[in-house]
Amino acid sequence: MPAFDSIASQLENQAIELPSWAFGNSGTRFKVFSTPGTPRTIQEKISDAAQVNEFTGLAPKVALHIPWDKVDDYAALRRFAGDLGLALGTVNSNTFQDDAYKFGSLTHTDAAVRQKAIDHHFECIEIMHQTGSTDLKIWLADGTNYPGQGDIRGRQDRLAESLTTIYARLGDDHRLVLEYKFFEPAFYHTDVPDWGTSYAQVTALGEKASVCLDTGHHAPGTNIEFIVAQLLRLGKLGSFDFNSRFYADDDLIVGAADPFQLFRILYEVVRGGGYGPDSTVAFMLDQCHNVEDKIPGQIRSVLNVQEMTARALLVDAPALLAAQNAGDVLGANGILMDAFYTDVRPHLAAWRESRGLAGDPMAAYAASGYQARIATERVGGHQAGWGA
Amino acid sequence: MPAFDSIASQLENQAIELPSWAFGNSGTRFKVFSTPGTPRTIQEKISDAAQVNEFTGLAPKVALHIPWDKVDDYAALRRFAGDLGLALGTVNSNTFQDDAYKFGSLTHTDAAVRQKAIDHHFECIEIMHQTGSTDLKIWLADGTNYPGQGDIRGRQDRLAESLTTIYARLGDDHRLVLEYKFFEPAFYHTDVPDWGTSYAQVTALGEKASVCLDTGHHAPGTNIEFIVAQLLRLGKLGSFDFNSRFYADDDLIVGAADPFQLFRILYEVVRGGGYGPDSTVAFMLDQCHNVEDKIPGQIRSVLNVQEMTARALLVDAPALLAAQNAGDVLGANGILMDAFYTDVRPHLAAWRESRGLAGDPMAAYAASGYQARIATERVGGHQAGWGA
Amino acid sequence: MPAFDSIASQLENQAIELPSWAFGNSGTRFKVFSTPGTPRTIQEKISDAAQVNEFTGLAPKVALHIPWDKVDDYAALRRFAGDLGLALGTVNSNTFQDDAYKFGSLTHTDAAVRQKAIDHHFECIEIMHQTGSTDLKIWLADGTNYPGQGDIRGRQDRLAESLTTIYARLGDDHRLVLEYKFFEPAFYHTDVPDWGTSYAQVTALGEKASVCLDTGHHAPGTNIEFIVAQLLRLGKLGSFDFNSRFYADDDLIVGAADPFQLFRILYEVVRGGGYGPDSTVAFMLDQCHNVEDKIPGQIRSVLNVQEMTARALLVDAPALLAAQNAGDVLGANGILMDAFYTDVRPHLAAWRESRGLAGDPMAAYAASGYQARIATERVGGHQAGWGA
Amino acid sequence: MPAFDSIASQLENQAIELPSWAFGNSGTRFKVFSTPGTPRTIQEKISDAAQVNEFTGLAPKVALHIPWDKVDDYAALRRFAGDLGLALGTVNSNTFQDDAYKFGSLTHTDAAVRQKAIDHHFECIEIMHQTGSTDLKIWLADGTNYPGQGDIRGRQDRLAESLTTIYARLGDDHRLVLEYKFFEPAFYHTDVPDWGTSYAQVTALGEKASVCLDTGHHAPGTNIEFIVAQLLRLGKLGSFDFNSRFYADDDLIVGAADPFQLFRILYEVVRGGGYGPDSTVAFMLDQCHNVEDKIPGQIRSVLNVQEMTARALLVDAPALLAAQNAGDVLGANGILMDAFYTDVRPHLAAWRESRGLAGDPMAAYAASGYQARIATERVGGHQAGWGA
Repeated sequence: MPAFDSIASQLENQAIELPSWAFGNSGTRFKVFSTPGTPRTIQEKISDAAQVNEFTGLAPKVALHIPWDKVDDYAALRRFAGDLGLALGTVNSNTFQDDAYKFGSLTHTDAAVRQKAIDHHFECIEIMHQTGSTDLKIWLADGTNYPGQGDIRGRQDRLAESLTTIYARLGDDHRLVLEYKFFEPAFYHTDVPDWGTSYAQVTALGEKASVCLDTGHHAPGTNIEFIVAQLLRLGKLGSFDFNSRFYADDDLIVGAADPFQLFRILYEVVRGGGYGPDSTVAFMLDQCHNVEDKIPGQIRSVLNVQEMTARALLVDAPALLAAQNAGDVLGANGILMDAFYTDVRPHLAAWRESRGLAGDPMAAYAASGYQARIATERVGGHQAGWGA
Repeated sequence: MPAFDSIASQLENQAIELPSWAFGNSGTRFKVFSTPGTPRTIQEKISDAAQVNEFTGLAPKVALHIPWDKVDDYAALRRFAGDLGLALGTVNSNTFQDDAYKFGSLTHTDAAVRQKAIDHHFECIEIMHQTGSTDLKIWLADGTNYPGQGDIRGRQDRLAESLTTIYARLGDDHRLVLEYKFFEPAFYHTDVPDWGTSYAQVTALGEKASVCLDTGHHAPGTNIEFIVAQLLRLGKLGSFDFNSRFYADDDLIVGAADPFQLFRILYEVVRGGGYGPDSTVAFMLDQCHNVEDKIPGQIRSVLNVQEMTARALLVDAPALLAAQNAGDVLGANGILMDAFYTDVRPHLAAWRESRGLAGDPMAAYAASGYQARIATERVGGHQAGWGA
Repeated sequence: MPAFDSIASQLENQAIELPSWAFGNSGTRFKVFSTPGTPRTIQEKISDAAQVNEFTGLAPKVALHIPWDKVDDYAALRRFAGDLGLALGTVNSNTFQDDAYKFGSLTHTDAAVRQKAIDHHFECIEIMHQTGSTDLKIWLADGTNYPGQGDIRGRQDRLAESLTTIYARLGDDHRLVLEYKFFEPAFYHTDVPDWGTSYAQVTALGEKASVCLDTGHHAPGTNIEFIVAQLLRLGKLGSFDFNSRFYADDDLIVGAADPFQLFRILYEVVRGGGYGPDSTVAFMLDQCHNVEDKIPGQIRSVLNVQEMTARALLVDAPALLAAQNAGDVLGANGILMDAFYTDVRPHLAAWRESRGLAGDPMAAYAASGYQARIATERVGGHQAGWGA
Repeated sequence: MPAFDSIASQLENQAIELPSWAFGNSGTRFKVFSTPGTPRTIQEKISDAAQVNEFTGLAPKVALHIPWDKVDDYAALRRFAGDLGLALGTVNSNTFQDDAYKFGSLTHTDAAVRQKAIDHHFECIEIMHQTGSTDLKIWLADGTNYPGQGDIRGRQDRLAESLTTIYARLGDDHRLVLEYKFFEPAFYHTDVPDWGTSYAQVTALGEKASVCLDTGHHAPGTNIEFIVAQLLRLGKLGSFDFNSRFYADDDLIVGAADPFQLFRILYEVVRGGGYGPDSTVAFMLDQCHNVEDKIPGQIRSVLNVQEMTARALLVDAPALLAAQNAGDVLGANGILMDAFYTDVRPHLAAWRESRGLAGDPMAAYAASGYQARIATERVGGHQAGWGA
């Protein structure tokens, strides 16, 4: 197995994008718990995100969600973030919270509703020009709850038409990433349920469109790393939404439910050329900290990605290939497991310290007093959450 | 196969309990859509429930959810319902919407939180005395999202202790039914995840405790009718929460996702003695009409249960047993399918008409003008939903 | 809803292909039970298949599995089948039972093993020329059991190369259909696990390649009719392998586990132009009659497909579209369910009799004495099964 | 976190029982691959098992499967094993490979078939007296493939009756462990599908009966460690069948598919008192080495159990409890993960060497030449597998 030192340099440019909404309240249909210190504004969300980057050096970008993060002056917001060492990243559209979208948005039977949803994406693109964002991420809640409620085929055709219109509006440096999701909030069918659908749709659009893979959006038993390998092979893996799940779209901390799966995913990313300075794959988090503290929840998440990336880089690739070619099942598996079972945490702590960062970011954040300060300062106002 | 006439009399006493909350708004974590005419009060919910019973003759009871349906004068509420031909049914407790319950209720590590949850159940029992309800239904959101977050074993012991305290407070005619649920809102573990846990807990309590089976609360692939048969055999099937699902706890209209499964469930109910005047099994609905109209959604639901009950009663039981004993796989399956594929709807329409009911309750309700009237009248106020 | 008579003519040309191997023994890894009368030769399999067609008028083709059904003289076999009113259909290749394929066939790291598997397909194509078959169906057992055992990406590239070589050998009238399967016999990853992979591979091949959808080869909760609609939209649905399943690839009688799902699938087939004289979608069965009698098992299967096709044709499409466009969830669902709940069996019996067929094919076959005759006659020899 | 040295002594008495059938050939319904050196006799299986114990010091017992391992002289077999340092362990009955059991064994409608199956268990008990085994393990293939095929309720009653008869024949030191399985080889329903059924059945039998938990026998998403905790709490966890799975009952090497799950299971074992000299929980493997070498497959398996046991013992229990009580979600989770991410392999290697064992058992076995020797010597005869 390679020594940690030999792979350390590959960790240098790792950058994970944080979702602004992870710092607001979230929950289930049963209850959204509020917490002292929760941001009331996008500026407070960005301030919290800056903490994650300060203690880890891993998170230089914040993704926006429109309209939750709408402001009057995006140039000012960009400067605000920049002053904290952050860039504004992916712009996420929202076509699921307006009453008009009850029966669909880009797929709706009513052309006026479709146009409203298209216009929303035009607005997002306009914001991207101002924020300097390159990626427009589309996740659709479109779907139906009952067989017969909608015309599956017609909806797919309308989706293609709507996406084509949006795609045409993209700026030269822009990308469109289309996220798929197996179920929820629609229960019978979703209009972009699987990577195949997203792939077919973005392929029809053109080179600036690719697939967003959210690790929580698959049926039970799905081999996600296979999809990673396949999309990289097809040149259509645009971005990740990292999180983890035990059953549904739980949106738990990435790596929390199945760390070995995260390792395998990152191994295929590395194997397939999706990691490193030449790759255009964007790494984002998409998580809901329903019961745990949000800032340390994000810190824990980016560390998990870093730790598993390090393990993936440690795989002895030539030895693995030799064992695979020899039909040595246990040997090949053992080479992979060697990397997974290696405790990279002490190495990473030392590496962090060598770069002027805290060896233990979780402890350093806890000791910083930031959490107590925001709990004291952020009194009154409306805590941010889904819908605000 | 028996003629419809020979089983018609068995349909006479069918009674399905409606959940008061089905008439309020519901949705997903992404969005709760509101609808014109949605009730603002428990009285309006009961009025809507009365419509379901008026057009179907199948739904003479309404289940309450505390605190959503709290009133000052339960005797008055009972009279209000009675005047509309309805009785007040199961009282459902709620230990998932108070901030205190973020980390559990009856299982919480803090004795004060447990006592608060126990006191809530004492209040529910007090309400039952006033409403004439016999069943206290406990569904717990208790659980954890992350491995290590809670002590699974200790939580189970505390659950047993809390339930014992509540059980001791039940009135002579009261029952406690303990619902299990595979996942949601907790994602890593729920404290009553399966029928085995509910069975073990209620068996330890005593004869007045039994299991509530919600048809949407199982892992994929679970054979629910087996559990029905087993619980009836063990004398511990207390009640049903009927609904249907494609993937998770979708809470769709019962029979909508898999009508054949509903048929098989009702066949095992009949087979095991869970149907008819001598049975104590309570049939309730627990559904969320997120996108469809609520009153006709409930009408459709009780009709679905009735139609599948009729089909289950039509199974030629002696012929089925003979085929089973003969090892005639296709013959036995064919006898069951004969009943399932029989279109009982014309028979039921005629039967309804013979009893002074509309032959087509869906059409009759639509023609009644009730929906337009409540849409006009129920202006202002706060539409009922989860949490109010 | 349309009257049955108005759709009856559309049933006339329905043709379902039977798999030769359905008449041989099958089972699980735990046990393969044998049965009196099981065929010993491909001729006996074809004779049994002819019974299915004789009693239903629905099954004029038999699919072959190579090498299980290899003969010296395919022209003679074609005449043998023709004399019984049958044509020889799809040729199924087998790259999972030779010791050489332990670690893969078309994806193997060893070029010699890949060539062996390619040569096998060349042989299949040669047989197709002799049998008059048009479809070459490729289902691969290729995959791995342990992470690291194989290189997912490299295997996919080799698959593409192998398929390209096979594709180039197809005759002018030939098609290649590539089947996907979620899991089994490989457990960690399969090389063609989902429709997306099959679609990406066959799209790269060309117009003569399309996807084979086996209804039992999906993850739990997958909406199969969506895939049907999508593949029809993309022009890449080549054929079906019909069967049903409760959990895994159970290969039960089609429609047995979830008749409503079969209905929904056939509705999307009709909706998307996959049914009728202009469609090139092939309807095949792929089932294992482990515990039930095989010939009546096949009769039951083709009848199930016919009955659900009739129901799908009965859907009032204009009314459905109107309800969908109006956002009438319950109305639209009700229109679909009306067709599903209609008991088409008496209509189909009368229709069959009008065409000189038995009204009740199951009873007619049972009364024919064929089963007793083959049980008596087929003594000695080696009963056919997987592997022979 | 405790130092490794402080938990090392608790590893001393760990003993994992090997299944004799793991050394024979196994596979899927598609193919069973044979391998040079595969045992032809139970003596050769035991010799192979002795290798696992020799290199790991962890596997002093071999479980037998009757009739696969039947011999004329069990006393001689016991001495044979003893001479190799092994004891004979659990006796596994087989009621799935005789033609008589096509429609059930202990649940069959025919009393004669039930008696045949009961007599088989009597024979197993007789063998236990001779081999010194204490555990009779019953796993049933009983179930049905089609709704209606069998009477679920009646089968359960007959199961109870049959088990009662078998239980009455147990010797004073004997135990009966009843294994449950979600699906396969029956597809529609299995007669002991879940822990609740096994628990209800063994509770009715008495103190000598308990549940066997096979880690591969659950629905997707099932929290297995919860069941472990619950059964330990109820005093009814008799034994484990360890293996791992990605989707169905894959019977892969334990810990291979989800090492974190294995860790969580072993943590609950330790937490609930299921580990150590006072526990009666038996640890067995039940795996199928379809594509990997069998002896090193077993070595890898027992090492995986040992490594995860060490990690589970390393959990800082007081700190964990404190964090749980404080509602510190991330803190509690972090304490658990600290133990999981600790690389115990170097510690275990040193510990092994201190006890005269090879530090790297996989490498030591590979270097021993045993595999080459058996490949050379074991020529001719009939390789052992399921069914022989």
